Amino acid sequence: MGKKDKKQQKLKARLPRGFVDRSPQDIRATEKMVSGIREVFELYGFDPVETPMFEYTDALGKFLPDSDRPNEGVFSLTDDDEQWMSLRYDLTAPLARHVAENFNDIQLPYRTYRNGWVFRNEKPGPGRFRQFMQFDADTVGAPGVQADAEMCMMMADTMETLGVRRGDYVIRVNNRKVLDGVMTAIGIGGDDHADTRLTVLRAIDKLDKFGTEGVRLLLGAGRKDESGDFTKGAGLEADAIDTVLAFVGAGGGSNALTIANLEQVIAGGDAGQDGVAELKLMAQLFDAAGYEEDRVRIDPSVVRGLEYYTGPVYEAELLFDVTNEKGQTVQFGSVGGGGRYDGLVSRFMGQPVPATGFSIGVSRLMTALKNLGKLDAIDVAEPVIVCVMDRDIESMGRYQGFVSSLRSAGVRAEMFQGNPKNFGKQLQYADRRGCPIAIIQGSQERDEGVVQIKDLIEGKRLSGEIEDNAAWRESRPAQISVSESDLVAEVQKILAAQAEDRKTA
Amino acid sequence: MGKKDKKQQKLKARLPRGFVDRSPQDIRATEKMVSGIREVFELYGFDPVETPMFEYTDALGKFLPDSDRPNEGVFSLTDDDEQWMSLRYDLTAPLARHVAENFNDIQLPYRTYRNGWVFRNEKPGPGRFRQFMQFDADTVGAPGVQADAEMCMMMADTMETLGVRRGDYVIRVNNRKVLDGVMTAIGIGGDDHADTRLTVLRAIDKLDKFGTEGVRLLLGAGRKDESGDFTKGAGLEADAIDTVLAFVGAGGGSNALTIANLEQVIAGGDAGQDGVAELKLMAQLFDAAGYEEDRVRIDPSVVRGLEYYTGPVYEAELLFDVTNEKGQTVQFGSVGGGGRYDGLVSRFMGQPVPATGFSIGVSRLMTALKNLGKLDAIDVAEPVIVCVMDRDIESMGRYQGFVSSLRSAGVRAEMFQGNPKNFGKQLQYADRRGCPIAIIQGSQERDEGVVQIKDLIEGKRLSGEIEDNAAWRESRPAQISVSESDLVAEVQKILAAQAEDRKTA
Repeated sequence: MGKKDKKQQKLKARLPRGFVDRSPQDIRATEKMVSGIREVFELYGFDPVETPMFEYTDALGKFLPDSDRPNEGVFSLTDDDEQWMSLRYDLTAPLARHVAENFNDIQLPYRTYRNGWVFRNEKPGPGRFRQFMQFDADTVGAPGVQADAEMCMMMADTMETLGVRRGDYVIRVNNRKVLDGVMTAIGIGGDDHADTRLTVLRAIDKLDKFGTEGVRLLLGAGRKDESGDFTKGAGLEADAIDTVLAFVGAGGGSNALTIANLEQVIAGGDAGQDGVAELKLMAQLFDAAGYEEDRVRIDPSVVRGLEYYTGPVYEAELLFDVTNEKGQTVQFGSVGGGGRYDGLVSRFMGQPVPATGFSIGVSRLMTALKNLGKLDAIDVAEPVIVCVMDRDIESMGRYQGFVSSLRSAGVRAEMFQGNPKNFGKQLQYADRRGCPIAIIQGSQERDEGVVQIKDLIEGKRLSGEIEDNAAWRESRPAQISVSESDLVAEVQKILAAQAEDRKTA
Repeated sequence: MGKKDKKQQKLKARLPRGFVDRSPQDIRATEKMVSGIREVFELYGFDPVETPMFEYTDALGKFLPDSDRPNEGVFSLTDDDEQWMSLRYDLTAPLARHVAENFNDIQLPYRTYRNGWVFRNEKPGPGRFRQFMQFDADTVGAPGVQADAEMCMMMADTMETLGVRRGDYVIRVNNRKVLDGVMTAIGIGGDDHADTRLTVLRAIDKLDKFGTEGVRLLLGAGRKDESGDFTKGAGLEADAIDTVLAFVGAGGGSNALTIANLEQVIAGGDAGQDGVAELKLMAQLFDAAGYEEDRVRIDPSVVRGLEYYTGPVYEAELLFDVTNEKGQTVQFGSVGGGGRYDGLVSRFMGQPVPATGFSIGVSRLMTALKNLGKLDAIDVAEPVIVCVMDRDIESMGRYQGFVSSLRSAGVRAEMFQGNPKNFGKQLQYADRRGCPIAIIQGSQERDEGVVQIKDLIEGKRLSGEIEDNAAWRESRPAQISVSESDLVAEVQKILAAQAEDRKTA
C-alpha cells in the first residue's frame, strides 16, 4: 500500500471480490423455488440432512476441475491444532464423510437432500461467484442403475414442478464406463495415463463452450483462446481423437439408436460394454416408466467435470434460447447434474459403498426461471405506514396501537421510525418504499376519535394523467376519515380493492 | 504425528472440532421456528436482506468479547491479492458494511431482517459450536429510542408467536449511556481508560454465570475459576466497585422504581442522565402500548458483551427452569439480544448513521422451545415403500408407476433402491425407516392385476401383545389385496386411519 492509502482515515465499505449481497426479491424468489424443489424430493421419500461449511481438507479430497495445484479451488486455513480445514466446494464430498462417520447408525439405502452454500476459491467473473447455493439429492447404498434412473426422473419431475414445460428441458444421460472403455481402446488405460484421461474428460466437458473443433484441439496439441492464452492438450494421435469424437457424437437420435452407435464405438472393450449395458437398462426403465426421449435422453457428450464419478452421469439442460452477454442467441444450457460416485464413501471405509446423486445450481436455475417468467408472481405487500404526527407519549401509544391491531389482523404495518419532524419526508418514505396506505392522526382527529386513511396507490393514479381510455375506471376516494374502531376493516377493504386493480391491470 | 498414524492408509471420516451435522428433525424444527420468526418480522414491515459469509477483515472490525488478540475469535485467510478476509462472526457488522456500501440506493429508515450462519474461531465446548445460526432484525436510520422500543416489543411478540407464554419470558432493557455515566463518575472515563471500561463491561456481562461475588472479583483484582485459571480483573477500588454494583443491582421493582434508583446512582453525570432519560421514555412507550413489566422490564444488569453498542441494549430471557449439565436447576436464560450501534455504519461514512437491532440465537431458542414441547408437533409422514419383487423391465416399470401415482396424489412414496434379492431385507428397511405401508406385487398378483397393501403400523401393533385394555381397539386387517386401480385410494384410507390412531393415542 502506498502512502496515499495510509493517509485515508475512513474505512472502505466493499465486499471481497466474487461475493454479493442478496436483495429481498432474490431471497423471496429463492425461497419459493427451493420450497418447490423440496416438495418433489420429499414426495420421493428423501429426508433433509446437512453438514457444516467446514471439513478437514483431506476429507474433502481434490476433485475440482481446473484446480490441480494444492489449495487451488478451495478456501483453506489451519485450525489451532495445525490441521488444515477447508470450506466445502460442493455438497457431495461432505455427504460422503457424513455417511462414513455415521455408517453404523445409517439405514441403507440412505435417501437424503440438502440445500446450502458452497465456496470456490476461483477468479470471479460475470455470473461466476465464489459463494453459491446448491440443492442436492443423493441415494447412498443403492448399487443398481435403477437408483440413477430414479435420479434422472426426479430431475425431470423437479423441472416440471418448477414450471419448465416439457420440451423446454431435457435430462441427458451418459456413463463414465463407456468413456473409460473408449480410452482403454485408444491406449490410455491404466494408472500411468490417469492425467491424460483427466485432460480428455475435461476437454469433452468443454464441448458446449468451444464446439467440436475446440475440443479436437484440446484432445490434441492444445488450444489458444481469443486472448492468446494457450491451454495444453491431451496430446492424442489423430486416430484416437477421431475415436473420442465418434463417441462424443454418438447421440442425437432415439435412445435405442444412440446405444447401437455406442456398441459400435466400443467394439468389445469390457468396461465399455458394462457401461453400454447400464445405459441400455436405464433406457428401458425410462421407457417402462413413460419417460420418453423428450424428457430423458442418452447423450454421450455428457461427461461432467468432476473427477469422482464412476458410472452413470446426468445433466439437466434447459433448451430455450437466451441472449448471452455477447448478444448471441444461445441455449440456456445446464442447470445441474450429477452421477454415480461409488468410490467417494469407500475412501473412508474398508468396504465398497455405492452412491449416486445430483446437484442443482440454485442461482442458475433461478435465472432460468426468471427468464421463463416463473418467479414473477411473488406479490409481497409493502407495509401500511402509520405516520407520526405528534410525539407525546399518548399519541405514540395510539400509533403503536394502530400498528398492533393491523398486525393482529395479518396486515403488514409499521410506524414511521425516522425523524418525524417533517411530515413530507414521511410521505416521501412511504412513496419510495411503495407503501399502499398511510394512516394519519393529528391532534384534531385524535380529539374526534377518527383517523385519516390515505390510499397512496389510488392517490398516485389520480395525480397522474389518465390519457388512455383503457386505464380509466371510476376512482376510489384517495383519502377517507373513519372512526378508530373501523380502521382495520377499512384498511383491509382498500387493500382488497388494490389487489383487484393489480389483477385486472 | 507419530509413525503409527502415517502407516494408516484409510482416510479418517471426522468433522473438525466444534462443527456438527444436522439431522432431519433438527432441520425441520429449525425451518418451522424460523418461519414463525419471519412471519412476525414481515408483519412489522421488515424485509429480508442477506450478506455473504466473507467480509474483508477490516470491514468487520474487532468487536468480539474475549478476543482482543488479532485473528482470535474469527476465521481469517488472505485472498489472492493479499487482503485479509474473515468469515462473519455476527450479522450486524456485515449489515453495517452493506448499508454503507449501498447508502445512496437505500431508503431510510431501512428495516431488514436476515437469517444465517455465523462463525467463531473459539475453543468449542458443550453446546458451544464454531458455526451457529442467528436471526437478526435491524432498523438503520432511526435516531429515536422509539425504534429501540419497537425492537423490544417485536422480540416479545416473537416469543409469544413461537409459543412461549407470557411470564415464561421477559425482555430486559438497559442503556450503555447510563453505564458510561457510572464509569465517568468513578473516574474511568476518557480514551485512556477504554480497556478498563471494556473489562468492566465484560465483568458485568458475567453476572448470570458468576453471581455478584464473582463479578466483584472481576471488577477488582481478578477471579480464579474452579480449574485454577486466573482472569485478571479491572482493578477498581472498593468504592468504585460498590458504585458499579449499585448500578447493576438497581432493578427488580417496577420500571418506574428502577429509573428512580438509577437517577440516584447517576447523581448528575451528563451521559448517565441522557441514558436514564432514554430509558424513561422507553418505559413510557412500553406502558402506552400496553407492554407491562411482565413483558418488557428495565434492568441495569443487562450490558451485552459486544463492544459496539452505544445506547439502549436489550435481551430476551426465558424464565422457566431447566436442569443444567451439572444437574442444577437454573433459569433457561438469554436466547438473544441487541442494542443501538450508532457508530458501526458511521465507521465507513463521513456522517452519523444511527441504527438499532437484535439477534436471536437460533439453536439456543430451539433448545428452549423443545424444552417447552413447542417443536414436537412436526409430523412428517415417512414414505410408503413399494417393494421390488421381480427385476424384469416390465415389473420395474409397474413399480415405478405405483410410486408415480402415489406421489401425484401427494403421498410420499419410494421404490426400494437397495439390493432387492432378499425380500426380508426390504421389510427390515421399511421397519427401521418407519414406513407406514408396503406395496407388494409378485408375478401372481401381477397376472391378476392386484397389489398387496401391507399396513406396517397395524401389523406391528398386532404382532405385539395387547395387554393393556386401554390400548385395545378393533384391529384393521394388516394386509389387503386390492385392484391396481384402487391402490391410491386404499393407501390414502389406511394413512388416514393411522393418523387417527396417532391422534387418539
